[in-house]
Amino acid sequence: MWKDLLPIGRDARSGGYRRFAWTGADADCRAWFRTQAEARGLEYEVDRNGNQWAWLGDPKAGDAVVTGSHLDSVPDGGAFDGPLGVVSSFAAVDELRARGAGPSRPLAIVNFGDEEGARFGLACVGSRLAAGQLTADRAAELRDADGISLPQAMERAGYDPEAIGPDPERLARIGAFVELHVEQGRALDLSGDPVGVASAIWPHGRWRFDFHGEANHAGTTRLEDRRDPMLTYANTVLAARKKARLAGALATFGKVAVEPNGVNAIPSLVRGWLDSRAADEQTLAAVVEEIERAATERGGRDGVEVRVTRESFTPVVEFEHALRDTAAGLLSAEGRAIPVLPTGAGHDAGILSASVPTAMLFVRNPTGVSHSPAEHAAEDDCLAGVLALADVLEGLACR
Amino acid sequence: MWKDLLPIGRDARSGGYRRFAWTGADADCRAWFRTQAEARGLEYEVDRNGNQWAWLGDPKAGDAVVTGSHLDSVPDGGAFDGPLGVVSSFAAVDELRARGAGPSRPLAIVNFGDEEGARFGLACVGSRLAAGQLTADRAAELRDADGISLPQAMERAGYDPEAIGPDPERLARIGAFVELHVEQGRALDLSGDPVGVASAIWPHGRWRFDFHGEANHAGTTRLEDRRDPMLTYANTVLAARKKARLAGALATFGKVAVEPNGVNAIPSLVRGWLDSRAADEQTLAAVVEEIERAATERGGRDGVEVRVTRESFTPVVEFEHALRDTAAGLLSAEGRAIPVLPTGAGHDAGILSASVPTAMLFVRNPTGVSHSPAEHAAEDDCLAGVLALADVLEGLACR
Repeated sequence: MWKDLLPIGRDARSGGYRRFAWTGADADCRAWFRTQAEARGLEYEVDRNGNQWAWLGDPKAGDAVVTGSHLDSVPDGGAFDGPLGVVSSFAAVDELRARGAGPSRPLAIVNFGDEEGARFGLACVGSRLAAGQLTADRAAELRDADGISLPQAMERAGYDPEAIGPDPERLARIGAFVELHVEQGRALDLSGDPVGVASAIWPHGRWRFDFHGEANHAGTTRLEDRRDPMLTYANTVLAARKKARLAGALATFGKVAVEPNGVNAIPSLVRGWLDSRAADEQTLAAVVEEIERAATERGGRDGVEVRVTRESFTPVVEFEHALRDTAAGLLSAEGRAIPVLPTGAGHDAGILSASVPTAMLFVRNPTGVSHSPAEHAAEDDCLAGVLALADVLEGLACR
Repeated sequence: MWKDLLPIGRDARSGGYRRFAWTGADADCRAWFRTQAEARGLEYEVDRNGNQWAWLGDPKAGDAVVTGSHLDSVPDGGAFDGPLGVVSSFAAVDELRARGAGPSRPLAIVNFGDEEGARFGLACVGSRLAAGQLTADRAAELRDADGISLPQAMERAGYDPEAIGPDPERLARIGAFVELHVEQGRALDLSGDPVGVASAIWPHGRWRFDFHGEANHAGTTRLEDRRDPMLTYANTVLAARKKARLAGALATFGKVAVEPNGVNAIPSLVRGWLDSRAADEQTLAAVVEEIERAATERGGRDGVEVRVTRESFTPVVEFEHALRDTAAGLLSAEGRAIPVLPTGAGHDAGILSASVPTAMLFVRNPTGVSHSPAEHAAEDDCLAGVLALADVLEGLACR
């Protein structure tokens, strides 16, 4: 099953995956999903937003237990982010059948479309649309680098662009959603556990820092006459790291734009983007405020004006405690130690959690490397993930 | 005279000049030069490399005293860098005539083509070609952003592309070259003098610093697991400033390129370009070595590999002491205090100094701002510059 999926959308040069929403590689992944569903006699359907479903039991009975993840990737992404959750879902259904466990509630496997947002710039489009967190109008404004809109792309892939939009009926059928995902950090590696349960998705945001100085000749302007925004930027990068470290948060400057960006020109403007995340919103706000204060203070000394704009913010997602504890309890009952841990990354489960009880399982990532061809999980840990998912599904749907 | 030149190639939006070599704006400036020459009865000619000459006396007699500068500009440059030297040359000839001073040596005014290098990326092309520091073959390889080669551009502007190349005959006719230029720093402003004489052009170079780290997810990678090259870059920017300050040198990071340059991605590579200059080559080498050492040391702590490549280097230009002292003496004799000062910027005079005795006069720049629409010199200081240039020309050519 896993073997058939591996070559799809793999770039021969980088070894990374380029499975972007509604492209040929995505269509191949989706065909694989349908084949897996039909091979198991599951009822296959596609919802109005292009998300794929495979049902064991009556889709319309309600109170369903749903598991799954996504099959698309970031540019040059790894093999596990997304696909591990879908493959494990099918494997878990196989495991339940091998155990002779008959579901008392409908069970479904889902492949959410366009989770990574690599093509249209917005993450979790399939789950956002289904959950009503993205309207059809706003979705129609999303365009890829070639100017193709999301509805156009879906139409070319064979879906009805008129159908796109909130799907409350479908949402109402879901009693619980469980997503298995490879961990994108090293918490499980450090604790020595193959599988963990998610407690929350950290709140996170993006802030644009504009450092306005004065363009001048790098060869003739005395150091004391300069208003060099590169200095203020550099000091802010180091301050961000320090403030984040002290608060147990994350802060990253990964994107920069410089004007005029000439070797012999003191810049007039340096623009840096801060990505910051923390365990709670209060800590995050405090860290960003401290970074902003450090930037402004240094800017005062450099003769540089600092303006900060919040470009996006996602509040904390606290997974429902009852379902989380049930999942953790089901797994601990097997004698396994189940750590409960937060994550800094967004997921479809985070989107759905606003509407339905949701839980996440993480599988150990020995290096923590993610969104890279080097992303990895050991086979034993993947198998442990399948058994854990089967245990949770059995506990939720078969008792 | 100055009034006619002011509107040419001025951008209405920025107020800065865009007089790029062999464009329409450049042709307009060159037409202005010819008009000024002919209005004064000076013999006008263009040399094989497109440099314009206006002669008082026999061009072929030899041992000529030449003055002048350039009329082209950087993108959004100021009104003074280049044109002040050409306008002052014509005004100085007028002043000599008003004084009734008859030259005993031929006197010429020159407008060197493409001094700023804004179009083809190499500075001082006209003087380099004339002085044999740029071969015709290498000049033919220069291309602008549209792929047009320098010979093609010159042909389109009405000049013979076959003629381009070293011009030793013409060079041999020059006994002394004096260039007047607006100062590109604040030394004269600080000393309170309207005019100064150049001692030297500082040695300078460009070094590319490649900081190699590891791309990873900004939202999930623990700070202690990162190999973030942005941190090493930031620390190097601040170290460069500090080392330069302690050594009395200049060091600037004005250009940066980041991969993948994504808001939520720890960069795999940050590339920063260092422009550094100092009074002597030993100091410059020491400063760059210290910056490199600081980068490597911090890189070791960040898990980032640092590679440094020297992309260009220009040795010190020490203007001929005899001519420099003669010029300073001629000006001091009038009861004016004449500071002798170095500059960090390159000039046609720096190119010619390798072949003929060369001196430079600087006119006070009250803010030091250069290569910017805000570049300025007061009218009184410009007139003082004309009188000083006339004094030097009279002393050299009329006694």
